[in-house]
Parts: sequence; C-alpha cells; structure tokens
Amino acid sequence: MSLSEFTLIDRFFSACGTPRADCALGVGDDAALLRVPADRELAVTQDTLVQGVHFFAGSAPQPLGHKALAVNLSDLAAMGAEPAWATLALTLPAAGPAWLAAFAAGFCTLARDSGVQLVGGDTTRGPLALSVTALGLVPHGQALRRSGARPGDLIYVSGTLGDAGLALLRLGQDREAELSDELRARLERPTPRLALGQALRGLASAAIDVSDGLAADLGHILECSGVGAELRLADLPLSPAITAHLAQGGDRLLPLSAGDDYELCFTLPPGHRADLEALVPRLACPITCIGRIGTRPGLRVLGPDGRTLPLARGGYDHFATAG
Amino acid sequence: MSLSEFTLIDRFFSACGTPRADCALGVGDDAALLRVPADRELAVTQDTLVQGVHFFAGSAPQPLGHKALAVNLSDLAAMGAEPAWATLALTLPAAGPAWLAAFAAGFCTLARDSGVQLVGGDTTRGPLALSVTALGLVPHGQALRRSGARPGDLIYVSGTLGDAGLALLRLGQDREAELSDELRARLERPTPRLALGQALRGLASAAIDVSDGLAADLGHILECSGVGAELRLADLPLSPAITAHLAQGGDRLLPLSAGDDYELCFTLPPGHRADLEALVPRLACPITCIGRIGTRPGLRVLGPDGRTLPLARGGYDHFATAG
Repeated sequence: MSLSEFTLIDRFFSACGTPRADCALGVGDDAALLRVPADRELAVTQDTLVQGVHFFAGSAPQPLGHKALAVNLSDLAAMGAEPAWATLALTLPAAGPAWLAAFAAGFCTLARDSGVQLVGGDTTRGPLALSVTALGLVPHGQALRRSGARPGDLIYVSGTLGDAGLALLRLGQDREAELSDELRARLERPTPRLALGQALRGLASAAIDVSDGLAADLGHILECSGVGAELRLADLPLSPAITAHLAQGGDRLLPLSAGDDYELCFTLPPGHRADLEALVPRLACPITCIGRIGTRPGLRVLGPDGRTLPLARGGYDHFATAG
Repeated sequence: MSLSEFTLIDRFFSACGTPRADCALGVGDDAALLRVPADRELAVTQDTLVQGVHFFAGSAPQPLGHKALAVNLSDLAAMGAEPAWATLALTLPAAGPAWLAAFAAGFCTLARDSGVQLVGGDTTRGPLALSVTALGLVPHGQALRRSGARPGDLIYVSGTLGDAGLALLRLGQDREAELSDELRARLERPTPRLALGQALRGLASAAIDVSDGLAADLGHILECSGVGAELRLADLPLSPAITAHLAQGGDRLLPLSAGDDYELCFTLPPGHRADLEALVPRLACPITCIGRIGTRPGLRVLGPDGRTLPLARGGYDHFATAG
C-alpha cells in the first residue's frame, strides 16, 4: 500500500526545520510567502543530486537528506549569506515510509541546525533525484562574489582538501570498502561553512565553494575576476587520511582535482590579513593560506621543487566525464 | 563530442527571459542576488516534470521548456503574485545542442513574455526531469490563499475544463493520435493565468490552480477553509472539443477529474460580484460561476436532474496511481 503524495509530504515534511517568523505561509498552498527584510538581498541557489551521478544506488537515506540540503547551503555560505528557507523537489521510485522518514530526518535536522525552514516543493514518482532550492539573506552589497579577486590578494581554503574524493575513489573501487567514520562523513555529510562565509563579509574579495575540485572552482574565481593565481602544492591542507594515501603513492593532485569537499576557497586583500586572523579562534574550521592572486592568466601550481606542475583541465563535469 | 556543463548553461541560458533591475546578480555565481521591495512578500514555488510521469518520452523540447516554467507560473498566478525570477534544474540524459536550443527557446520565450529572469539552476546528466523554482512578488497581506473561502462565496473557474485531460487520454491511447492544434496546445503549452490572479487580489477569498483536476483542487480549498461546496455539472465551462467528446459518450466527469488545465479556481464573496464583472472585459480568459461554498463538508456535484453525482476520490496522485 502506498501513501498518497499529499499524505507523504504532510507526514514527513510539514514541520521541517526551524519555524521562522519571516515565513508568512509555508508548506501547503500554491506557493510559500516569505518576508525579506528591507536591508537584505535575497540569495537563491538550486542544486540537484541524481542517483548514479552524485550518489550510488542504495545510498543510505539519512545522509542523502543531509547532503541534498548541505550542498545548497554551501552555495549560500560561499555568498556570505545567512540561510533562511528551502524548497525540496523529491523524485523517488517508491514511497517507502522508512526511507522517507530517514531521508526527512537527515534533511530536517540540518535545516533545524542551520535556521532553515522548509517552505515548499513537491514529491514525484520517478528515478531518484533531489533538487533543493535554498534561499538566504545577505546585507545589501555585502555578498561575496566570484569576481572580486585582485592581483596581490592571498588565497585561502577552509578545512582540508581531497577527503570526499578519496572516499569516492575507494567506494568506486569497492562499494563495500571500509572507510573511517571521518572519511565517510566527509563524502556523505559535508558541513556547509556557513559561519565562515558570513564572517568573511567585508573581508574577502571573492569566494566560491569547492564542489568540483579546487583547481576548477578557483578557476571560476580567476576567470570571473580576470586574474591568475599561483598555489604551492605543499601548502594545501590535508587530513591524515590524505597524507597517508599520498605516502602510499596516491595521486598527489587529488587534493586539487577532487570535488565534493564543500570547503570555501576565498581571496583576501593582504591588508585584511590581521582581521582574518583575529577571526580564527571563533571559526569551527581551520583556514589555510595556499597561494596568491597574480596578473598572469591561469592557475599555476608549484611542486615541492618550485617547478610548475602540469595540470589536466580540472573539475568535475557531468557531461564531459560521461559523454 | 559533448559540450561541457558550463558551456551549455552559458550558451543557452545566460540571457534567458527579461533582464530585471531588481536582479543584482544572475546566472554564474554560487547564488543569485535579488532585491525584494519592502512592500512585497516573496512567493516561492517549486514544481518538477519527470519524463514518463508528466510527459511522454520523446516529447518535443520547445513545448516542454514552456510547460516546465508555465506550471510554476500557474502556482504564482494562484497566489495573485507577479512573477519575477526563476531557477531551472535540468537533468537530461544527453546534451544535444538542438534539443537544448529548442527547450531553451520554449522556456525563455515564456520567461520573457512573463517578465521573468532566469537567475540560476544547474544541469546534470540523468533521466530527463525539469525542476523549476519560480519566485514572485505580492503586496503584503494580499496573496490569495486556499484557506479563505467562506459559506455563501461563489465558486468560479477560468477558461474551460478537461481539454488537457482529453488530449492526454487520446495520446495515451495512441501516441500518434491526430489532435487539433487547440487541444494539443492545452496539454503542451498551458497558459498561466497571471493577469487574472493579480486582478483577483482584494476580490477573491481563496484561489488554487487546477493542476490535479477541479474536484481535487477545489477539494484543497474546501479542506483548508473548513467548508463544503456544491457545483452544477451543467455549469462547468467546456470547449467545443469536450462538448463533442461528451456527446460521443465520453466520461461526463472528465472536466472534474482531469488535471493539467492550469486554469484558476477561486471563490468570491457575493458582495464582490459587481467588481469582478467589471474586470471581465480586460481579462484574457472567460470566467464562469460554477457553484457555491456551503457549510456542509465535502464536495457535491449536481447532475442535470438535480441529483448529486457519485464522485470517485478525485485528483491525480503520482504514488496512488502508480503504486
């Protein structure tokens, strides 16, 4: 017996996340009605996870619910926006209450912890896919864009790089591979760097989240800003798992090319360095300076010997990789 | 050779719809940045079309682009909101430039004609699905909700009912069925009743769009408003195609049960009747009074003999019908 569409939505998602006074009308009408404060801009992003492309068939539903929202909140973090509301389009082949309950638990727990109220969306039968629209608020003119990097700016990244990529590599080789809890969490339960993004308003000159790999995502900043950059491979922040992987002969470019880390990469005018360092004690994640913006176009990565490493055209591209 | 994801989006969607001064940042960053006027509420809706569920495999891409946006604008119309922005999550198995160009033409033409700017979204390889989030603006406190119908209110519907359902019925029996242009357009290129929805602000007590069938959608108004209703089957507005279909023995309840018409159903306090009639000459679609709200719960439909017709539990439900 299957539950009706409306019953499903009501049952698992009607009171999802943080109830907000600025939501005049939530789930249950033709559209939600929201109140944006006069001094705020609305930040809007929509990202979709598709089975077989972004996650394996049979993936556990609770982390999936978390990740579907997290990847969108990560985009808001990269704008310096405070998350407020979300809608969820859930396409799934069967309406199993157990699956839905676990998925909703993952989604709604992150929503609650992030101050987000789920305000709408739809549920459809079809191949498993999760499309979330996240809406956030940012003071007028203070959003972090990709286009503001200037020659001389320092380049930073939060957390560590390559962990999600290493987890994906191992699971791709063997779906039953034993992963440490930490490594699995980095792939399945990414942490959107919301506090960092908001703290960078007025400090960073540009920002992006690392979803397609550092080289590709920093590449977007360079292109949008009309600048180039030089990184030092030895300065990339690595977890013990990645350090061990590289020591065993793993691809040393993994931390540059692997996607799904959802760290923030940002640029900082050198004059803001002291202000940034003053922030560090109250950030939930480390930040590391990895290089500098220059005028010469393109991205150069210097190896331990000081020579430029040859980089493949980087980044994760669904069509290019599968085409 | 496949185009890269970024190239695809840039090529077909970077200048899609109406450029708006209230869009501070559109496609091409981690999120769009939008400015909501202080006297407006933001209306947000997200609806997904999935191949094999909402449209046939092999459907022409241009009407599909139109419909993916139209069904969302219809939700905004039902709130009385003026459409402003949209995001599009496009999941498709292959990135054929011809398909994309036609899809984008359908989507972006409706966007342009409706004053909507496409401000974001993503493109993913996977089973064909289109998830759109539409954002609109409505003066504070003036949105049309489902919950405002009161006993004594008149019930109206725009346009005609059952056309899309008849087209679907015929194509379901024979994918090559010959349909008149009018009937095909009603299924494939629905017209969101945006001007009507906005004109009903301050007049209608409740509104909904007819996506799941009149009985089901009016049922939502009744449930949300805690009231009942009586309709006269003979008063339902029918096109010549439906009249002919019924004359040939077609299901006389089709205009009540068929979805996908995207007309507006609304309720009107009787004291507002003269104001509504004054609007009619400048509306693009006819409106018809089909019944009245009462206190007795449930929906009763009176046949030509004045007796109540037995109604199946109505409406389109992806899980119930396919489960």
